Amino acid sequence: MKFSKDTRPNGVADKETAQLLAEALPWIKNITGKTIVIKYGGAAMVDPKLRADVMADIVLLKTVGVNPIIVHGGGKDITKAMEDAGIPVEFKNGQRVTTDEGMDIVRTILAGKVNQELVRALNEHGNIAVGVNGVDGGTVIAEPESKELGRVGRIKRINGQLLQDLIDADYIPVIATVAIGNDGGYCNVNADVMAGQIAAATGAAKILFLTDVDGLYLDFDDKDTLVSQLSLEEAGKLIESETLSSGMIPKLRSCVTALEGGVPSAYIVNGTIPHAILLEMLTLTGVGTAVYADDANSSIPVGNFASKLLENK
Amino acid sequence: MKFSKDTRPNGVADKETAQLLAEALPWIKNITGKTIVIKYGGAAMVDPKLRADVMADIVLLKTVGVNPIIVHGGGKDITKAMEDAGIPVEFKNGQRVTTDEGMDIVRTILAGKVNQELVRALNEHGNIAVGVNGVDGGTVIAEPESKELGRVGRIKRINGQLLQDLIDADYIPVIATVAIGNDGGYCNVNADVMAGQIAAATGAAKILFLTDVDGLYLDFDDKDTLVSQLSLEEAGKLIESETLSSGMIPKLRSCVTALEGGVPSAYIVNGTIPHAILLEMLTLTGVGTAVYADDANSSIPVGNFASKLLENK
Amino acid sequence: MKFSKDTRPNGVADKETAQLLAEALPWIKNITGKTIVIKYGGAAMVDPKLRADVMADIVLLKTVGVNPIIVHGGGKDITKAMEDAGIPVEFKNGQRVTTDEGMDIVRTILAGKVNQELVRALNEHGNIAVGVNGVDGGTVIAEPESKELGRVGRIKRINGQLLQDLIDADYIPVIATVAIGNDGGYCNVNADVMAGQIAAATGAAKILFLTDVDGLYLDFDDKDTLVSQLSLEEAGKLIESETLSSGMIPKLRSCVTALEGGVPSAYIVNGTIPHAILLEMLTLTGVGTAVYADDANSSIPVGNFASKLLENK
Amino acid sequence: MKFSKDTRPNGVADKETAQLLAEALPWIKNITGKTIVIKYGGAAMVDPKLRADVMADIVLLKTVGVNPIIVHGGGKDITKAMEDAGIPVEFKNGQRVTTDEGMDIVRTILAGKVNQELVRALNEHGNIAVGVNGVDGGTVIAEPESKELGRVGRIKRINGQLLQDLIDADYIPVIATVAIGNDGGYCNVNADVMAGQIAAATGAAKILFLTDVDGLYLDFDDKDTLVSQLSLEEAGKLIESETLSSGMIPKLRSCVTALEGGVPSAYIVNGTIPHAILLEMLTLTGVGTAVYADDANSSIPVGNFASKLLENK
Amino acid sequence: MKFSKDTRPNGVADKETAQLLAEALPWIKNITGKTIVIKYGGAAMVDPKLRADVMADIVLLKTVGVNPIIVHGGGKDITKAMEDAGIPVEFKNGQRVTTDEGMDIVRTILAGKVNQELVRALNEHGNIAVGVNGVDGGTVIAEPESKELGRVGRIKRINGQLLQDLIDADYIPVIATVAIGNDGGYCNVNADVMAGQIAAATGAAKILFLTDVDGLYLDFDDKDTLVSQLSLEEAGKLIESETLSSGMIPKLRSCVTALEGGVPSAYIVNGTIPHAILLEMLTLTGVGTAVYADDANSSIPVGNFASKLLENK
Amino acid sequence: MKFSKDTRPNGVADKETAQLLAEALPWIKNITGKTIVIKYGGAAMVDPKLRADVMADIVLLKTVGVNPIIVHGGGKDITKAMEDAGIPVEFKNGQRVTTDEGMDIVRTILAGKVNQELVRALNEHGNIAVGVNGVDGGTVIAEPESKELGRVGRIKRINGQLLQDLIDADYIPVIATVAIGNDGGYCNVNADVMAGQIAAATGAAKILFLTDVDGLYLDFDDKDTLVSQLSLEEAGKLIESETLSSGMIPKLRSCVTALEGGVPSAYIVNGTIPHAILLEMLTLTGVGTAVYADDANSSIPVGNFASKLLENK
Repeated sequence: MKFSKDTRPNGVADKETAQLLAEALPWIKNITGKTIVIKYGGAAMVDPKLRADVMADIVLLKTVGVNPIIVHGGGKDITKAMEDAGIPVEFKNGQRVTTDEGMDIVRTILAGKVNQELVRALNEHGNIAVGVNGVDGGTVIAEPESKELGRVGRIKRINGQLLQDLIDADYIPVIATVAIGNDGGYCNVNADVMAGQIAAATGAAKILFLTDVDGLYLDFDDKDTLVSQLSLEEAGKLIESETLSSGMIPKLRSCVTALEGGVPSAYIVNGTIPHAILLEMLTLTGVGTAVYADDANSSIPVGNFASKLLENK
Repeated sequence: MKFSKDTRPNGVADKETAQLLAEALPWIKNITGKTIVIKYGGAAMVDPKLRADVMADIVLLKTVGVNPIIVHGGGKDITKAMEDAGIPVEFKNGQRVTTDEGMDIVRTILAGKVNQELVRALNEHGNIAVGVNGVDGGTVIAEPESKELGRVGRIKRINGQLLQDLIDADYIPVIATVAIGNDGGYCNVNADVMAGQIAAATGAAKILFLTDVDGLYLDFDDKDTLVSQLSLEEAGKLIESETLSSGMIPKLRSCVTALEGGVPSAYIVNGTIPHAILLEMLTLTGVGTAVYADDANSSIPVGNFASKLLENK
Repeated sequence: MKFSKDTRPNGVADKETAQLLAEALPWIKNITGKTIVIKYGGAAMVDPKLRADVMADIVLLKTVGVNPIIVHGGGKDITKAMEDAGIPVEFKNGQRVTTDEGMDIVRTILAGKVNQELVRALNEHGNIAVGVNGVDGGTVIAEPESKELGRVGRIKRINGQLLQDLIDADYIPVIATVAIGNDGGYCNVNADVMAGQIAAATGAAKILFLTDVDGLYLDFDDKDTLVSQLSLEEAGKLIESETLSSGMIPKLRSCVTALEGGVPSAYIVNGTIPHAILLEMLTLTGVGTAVYADDANSSIPVGNFASKLLENK
Repeated sequence: MKFSKDTRPNGVADKETAQLLAEALPWIKNITGKTIVIKYGGAAMVDPKLRADVMADIVLLKTVGVNPIIVHGGGKDITKAMEDAGIPVEFKNGQRVTTDEGMDIVRTILAGKVNQELVRALNEHGNIAVGVNGVDGGTVIAEPESKELGRVGRIKRINGQLLQDLIDADYIPVIATVAIGNDGGYCNVNADVMAGQIAAATGAAKILFLTDVDGLYLDFDDKDTLVSQLSLEEAGKLIESETLSSGMIPKLRSCVTALEGGVPSAYIVNGTIPHAILLEMLTLTGVGTAVYADDANSSIPVGNFASKLLENK
Repeated sequence: MKFSKDTRPNGVADKETAQLLAEALPWIKNITGKTIVIKYGGAAMVDPKLRADVMADIVLLKTVGVNPIIVHGGGKDITKAMEDAGIPVEFKNGQRVTTDEGMDIVRTILAGKVNQELVRALNEHGNIAVGVNGVDGGTVIAEPESKELGRVGRIKRINGQLLQDLIDADYIPVIATVAIGNDGGYCNVNADVMAGQIAAATGAAKILFLTDVDGLYLDFDDKDTLVSQLSLEEAGKLIESETLSSGMIPKLRSCVTALEGGVPSAYIVNGTIPHAILLEMLTLTGVGTAVYADDANSSIPVGNFASKLLENK
Repeated sequence: MKFSKDTRPNGVADKETAQLLAEALPWIKNITGKTIVIKYGGAAMVDPKLRADVMADIVLLKTVGVNPIIVHGGGKDITKAMEDAGIPVEFKNGQRVTTDEGMDIVRTILAGKVNQELVRALNEHGNIAVGVNGVDGGTVIAEPESKELGRVGRIKRINGQLLQDLIDADYIPVIATVAIGNDGGYCNVNADVMAGQIAAATGAAKILFLTDVDGLYLDFDDKDTLVSQLSLEEAGKLIESETLSSGMIPKLRSCVTALEGGVPSAYIVNGTIPHAILLEMLTLTGVGTAVYADDANSSIPVGNFASKLLENK
C-alpha cells in the first residue's frame, strides 16, 4: 500500500537480492578509486543497443568512483573508408597492411570519426568523456613493425601522464589506436596490445577485453573447454603450447603483457552479455575468463574488510 | 573448467544479477560519504545470529564509504539488573519510571554493558567502533520530563561535534541513551527520540529504525495495511488522526522529528529480515516503510548520474 | 676574448637591446599566468615554415607561464576531402553549406586530420599539446543556424571546464570547430566566432586573430587606413556603419563578442610576420590592430610594477 | 592610424625586436623563481642617474619573478664620516684598517645611512625592499682577520634563513656588510667576499659583481684582453698565475668562492652600462665576464623548453 | 587607586612572583603540544574537593596546549558492587581475583559508572572529555595472567590510534582499565601497568602516577628516605634489590615500563598536595619522585630557548 | 634524597607557588599567539643589567608563543652624536627640534647604532630579532609636523605588512622611529605615538609602555595617587581635565590612540621593576596602570577555559 507519489514498486526485496548485495559490496570497495582499462570492440561496439548498454555500465562504474579508460580500434569504419577511397584492403597475420595513404585514412577515421562517436555516446550521460589518440600529450610512440605491414606499429613507449591527468580531472579517457611514428609518420597499433600496455603504464587494477566469445576456449569447437580462471604462468604455457585456436592467442598474449607490466588481473569477457562488465567486476562467479598475476589477486575480497579499511589510517 | 587454485564458482552470473547490480550502483553512489543513523533494537539486537548479521551489514556499509551511527537502548538488560537489585520495574505510557537509584543502574548497564558488548561485536571486524554515551563530549543534555517518570529525560540540546569527529577519524560511533541532566543528575532518554534528534544534529542523509515488524501498518491486525511509502505531510496527518495502533506512533513521530530536523528520509524496517539494512538502502523496492521529506528525496537516483558527479567540479 | 668552451658570441649587447628588454619585461609580467586564445588560420597555418614558427612562439609563451588555447578551422583540407568524395562545395555569406553527408567529412577531417597534425607539430617541442573538439567534455553545444546552410551551427553554450582542466594540467589545448548539435547531429561552427566565445568562457586576458592581412583597414584598398587601436565602442560603430570591407566584418565582430564577454583586449594580427604573436604581446608598438574593452586595459604596464606585485600580498 | 585614446606608437615592431624577444624568453624562464645575488658598488651606486637605473632594473627582475638580494659596502660615506670624526683613514692590501672607534662609525654609517638610502630608493617603486645587516637574524658571524687590520673580519658562518624568509615574503633584501664579531664586538667585512658567501648560502643561481670596468682584463692596460667567458678551473689557474692586475684578483676570487659554494655562474659586469644587469642575464652575448662552474651551466637555454617545463609534472 | 570597575587587587605583584613566572615559562614551553599520561587514583580520585582540583588542573594543562590522557581503575566502586551482588572479594599479590561473573561487574562499573563520572566532572569545564575503555577502537588486548587470578589480564597489545585521534580532535581521553580478552572474554588490567604501556604506545613525554604518598621511599617507615630523583638504571637496580617496601614496587616497575617504552620521564606524585600536577610539571623543585630515562631528559630547560624555538624553522 | 646527577633542588614546591601557577596559566593562554607591542625606553634601555633582563623576558614571551614587537627611540645617543657633530640640541614641547642636518644624524644613529645594539642583545638568545626602521618595507610614512620642529613628523600611514611577515617567520621585529617623509626627506617620529599606532595597525592584543615611573599618578608628587586601572573613557576625560602632570600626558594619550585604534588594553609600567613585563601580563595584580577599551577586556580570564578552547573547533 502506498501513499503519495508512487515511486516504490510493491512487494519487498527478496532474500537472493539481499545475499547478492552483501556479496557485491566488497567487490565495489575493491575497485573504487582504481583505474580499469576496457578494450572495447566487436559486436558490443557495433550494435547500437549493446553499445548504449556498455556506455551506461561504464558511466555507472565512474559514478561509484572507478576510473575507466577505454581503448578502441575501428576496423569496419576504416575498411569502409578505404574502400570508398579505392585503397585495397589487405590483412596479414590478422593485421591490416597499412600504406602511407592508408595510414592517413586510418588515423583520420579512428580519431575523427569512431573516437568522436564513442565520446559523444558517453557524453549523453554528462560531460564526462574526452577523446584522445596517441598523438595527444605524446601518449604513444611506435615504430613500423615490418616492411610488409607498412605503418603497422610496434609500441616503443607509453607516456601515461595525459591519461592520468584526465582521470584526476574526473574524465573518462577514450583512446584511439593512433601512434606517433618515431620516423616522422604515424602508426596504426593493434588495440589489444595497446590496451595491455596502457593498463601497465597507468597502474590499472584490471583490464577487460570485450569480445564476441564467452572467454578462452581450449578447443574453440568444444564449448565445454571454456576456462574460468588461470594463472599468469598457466597462460604463458598455454601460449607456448600452440594448442590454442589462433583467434585466442593475441587476446591471451595481451593479458600476459598487462600482467607482466604489473596489472594484477585481466579478463576476457563476452561484450554481448548484458552488463557483462558489472558481472565480471562485481560478482564472485564472473562471466568470462580471468587471468591472475598471483594467488593474492585471485583471492575473494571477503572477511575482515574493516581492518583493511583502517590499515591505512 | 578451471585451472590453478579454484576460487571462482562454476557457471556465469545470470541476467537477474546483472540487472540488480546495475540498479544498486546508483543507490550506493547516493549514500557514499553520507551519515546514516541506525536506531538499533528489538530482536535484531537480542538474537545472537541476527545481531551478528546486522553488525556485518553495518561494517559493509562503512567499508564502501557510508558513515553509520548506531543508537541503542537496552531494555532487557536494564530490567534484569533492576530486578537483581530489588528495584521495582514500572512503565507509564511506554516509558520506564526511573528513580535516582534506578538511574544509576540504567546508565551503568547501558554504557558499561550493552554499549560495550555492541562495540565489541563490531570490532570483531576490525578496530572500527567506539562506544559513546550522552555524557562523552557533552553530547546530549536533557531535563526530567515529568515528576512521575523520575529521571526520564526530554532532550534539551544535542552537540554533534564528537560524533562528527569520530566519523572524520573513520570510526562507527555506537551511542547509548544516557544524557547529562541539566540539574546535576543523569537522564534516561527514549532511544527512538534520541536517534531522530541525532540524525538531525549530524546532518544524516537517512535514519533507519530497526524494529520487529515489517513497517507501518495502518491497522496493525490487517497485514494488508502495511504502508510502503508516505510523505512527511501524510505522516503528520496520520499521527494526528489517532487511528494508528499505539506501538506505531512513537516510531512514526521520531521519523517526523528527524525529517523536520532536515533529514531527507526515514525508514521503519524489520530488523529480522536478513540484510534488511542493505535491501532498504540499495534497492528500489525496499523492505519497510519509507517517509520522505519531499518529492525530490523520494525520486529514484537513476538517469544522468555523471552530470551530477561533475557538477561538483 | 674567450677561454674554454665557446658559447658566447663576441661583443657586448647594445643599448637598443637593453632598452627593448626593459620595455618587454612589464608586458611579460602582464600576461604570465593568463589565458590567451589564439585563433589560428590563414597562411600561417598552411605554410610549413610559418607554421613551425608560430608553433615555436606559442611554446615559448607556454614556457614563460602564459596559457595559450588554440582554435582552428581547416577549410582547405575539408574542401579537398569533399571534392575527393564527390560532394559539391558551396559557400553562402562566407559560410560553407554543410549537408549531413558533408558534416561527416567536416568533423572527421577537422578532428582526425587537421587537429591531429597541429597537435603533433606542437608536440615536437615536448608532450605539451592535446587535441580537443567541441564534443570532448561537452565543450561546445550548437544548433543549426538556418535551413539553407545545413549543419552550420550557432553556438548555444560553451562549457569551458575541460579547457581549464587541461590548462591546469599544463597542456596547450588545440580545439577544432566541431560542435555537438542539440538535435542529435553535429555542427560546423565558424572558427572566429568560436574563438571569441571560448575566450569569453575561459576568462582569457587576450584573444589574437591570426590573419593574412596587417590588421583592420578602414578601406581595404588604401593601406594607409590601417587602424592601430580602437575602443569597443568605436568597433561597434564601425560595424554598424557598413563602411568596412566585408572580409573585415566577421573578425571585428568576433573581437566585439569576446570583449562583450569580458575579455579585456582583442587583436587582429598578420600571422605571416615573423614572431607576430610575441611582438603584439610584448611590445608597446604592437604589429596589428588592437581593440580594448576600456581605457584601463589600453594603458601601458609601465611605472610602479612592484606595488602592483605586492598588492596581492 | 589610431582611434580613441592614443597609447600605441605608430608603426609596427620590427624584425630585430621579434628575434630578440624570442631569444630572451628562454633566459627569462631560466631565472624565474631563482635567487640572484647582486654585489652593488662603484659608480653605479654613487651616480644618482645610474643608481636610479640599476634600482629600476632590479625591481623589473623582481616583477617577473626573479628574487634579487643586494649586497653593498659604502666606502665613500664611511671615509667621509671618519674624516668628520677626526679618525685617520688607512688601507692595507685594499682593506680599511678599522679600529674599535672606527668600527662604530663603519657599522652606523653602513646600516643607518647607506643601507637606508638604498632601501628608500628601491621603495620608490613600492614597499618592496628591506634593509638588513649581518646582525639581523644572526645572519653573518665573523672574526677579526688580523691584528693590524683591527675589526676587519673573516666570515665564520652565514645563516641564510632571514634572507630566505624575506624572499619568501616577496621582499628584496638589501644587506650591509656589518657582521657580528665572535668576540663580542662587530666586524667590517669585504663586500665582494660577503656577496660570494651569501650567494653560496642562499643557493643563488647567479651572482653579479657590478664594477666600474667592463669585466676581467688579462692585462688591464690592454683593452683587447677582456675575457668574455672562463671556467672555474681556468679562473683558479689565473688567480694562481699572479699575472692579473691586483684590482681584478679579489673579484675573481669572490667568483671562485661563490662557484665553489655551489653557485652555477658568476659575472663581472660594468654597472655604468645602461641596463647591464638585464643584458647580462637575458641575452646570449652578455656584457661582461662570465665564470661558469661547469659546461652544463654555460650552455644556452635553447631548444626543447617545453619538455623541460613538463619534466617536473 | 582605581577608577572604573574594580578588577585588579591593590598592590603590585612581588619579586618572588616575578622570579617564579620567569622560571615556569620554559617548563610550559617544554610540554606544550606534548602528550602526558596521568594515572589517576587514590584519595585524589575519591575525595570530592581533591577530585575537583585535579580536574581543574588537568583542564588548565589542556588549555595551554598540553594533551593529557587519564587512566583510571575503580577499586572501591567495584568492591561495593561485588559485595552488593554477593560475590566474594579476594586479592592475591595485590590483584583482585576476578571470576567470569565478577568480570561482568568489573567492566560494567569501570566503564559505565566510574569512567562516566570522571568524564562528567571534566565536562563541567566544557565539552572536553571522552570516556574510553580498552574495547573501544580495539585499544587494549590482554590475556588471562594466571588461572588463580581468573580474568586478571596481562596486556598483549596496545593500539594507540583511537587515543591519538581523540587528542587530534582536542579531547581529553579518560580510559578505564577494561581490556578485550584474546579468548573471547574481557580482562581486568592493573591501572599502573596499563598507564605505563599507554604512555609508551602514544609517545607521551611524561607519565605521572598520582598516589597517596609523597613519592618513593627507600624505607617506607623513614620519611627521610624519600627519593627526589633517580635514573632508569638506578630504578632497575632498586627493584631487583628487593629492599623496597612492597607497595612501592609496582609503581616503580610501571615507571620503568614507561621509560623502557620510550617515555623520557616518569613521576610518582602525592595527589593530595594542591596542584601537585602543576608543581611537578612546571617547577624545578617538583613535588615527588622523578625517574629519568637519561641525563638529557633530566636537564633543566633553561638557557638559549629562542634558538631551540628557531631550530625547527 | 637524590640519586644520580643532581638536578632538582631539595624540598618540594610550596602552596603559594602552586596557587600562582594555577593563576598564571589562563593569562598565558590569553596571550599565546597574540601580538604585543612594547615601547622600550628609559632606564630599562640604558642600564646594562636592566636591559639584559628585559631582553630575556621578551625572549621568554616569544618562547611561549607570544609575538612581541619592540619600538624604541634613542634620545641619549642622538644627543651625544649631535653634540659631537657640533649641532645645537634644542627641545620644544618635549620634542627635539630637528634640522635637515640633524635628521641625518637622528636616522643614522637610531637605525645604525641603537637599533643594531638592541637586535644584537636579543640575538644573544638565538637568531631571533630583526632590526627595522620606518623606511623598510615602506612601514611608516610621515609629514613634518610644524616649521619650527623641522623634521619632526606626524604619522600619515602605517603599513604593518613587513612587521606581520617577520612575525609570521617567527622573528621579533625591533623598530626604530625613523619614517619616510612624504616630501622626499626623512622624519623623526615620537616613539610613544609610533608604538601606539603600530599596535593599532598590527592588531596587537596589548601595548606596554616601559617607563621610569610606577604608572600614572594623578598628582605626580603624591605617590598615593598612582592609578591601578582606568577605562578608555576615563583616560579621555583625564587628558582633557588638564590636571595631569605634563610628563604623563603623552603616554596616556598614546594609550588612548592605541585603544581607539582597536587595541583592547594598554599598560604604563615601570621598566626598572624586575620582570615587570611578565608580572603585568601574567598576574591579576599587575604592576602598573592598565587602561581598558571596555569592560570585557578588563575581566579576568578565569572560569570555563576549556569551552573557550573548544569554541573554535
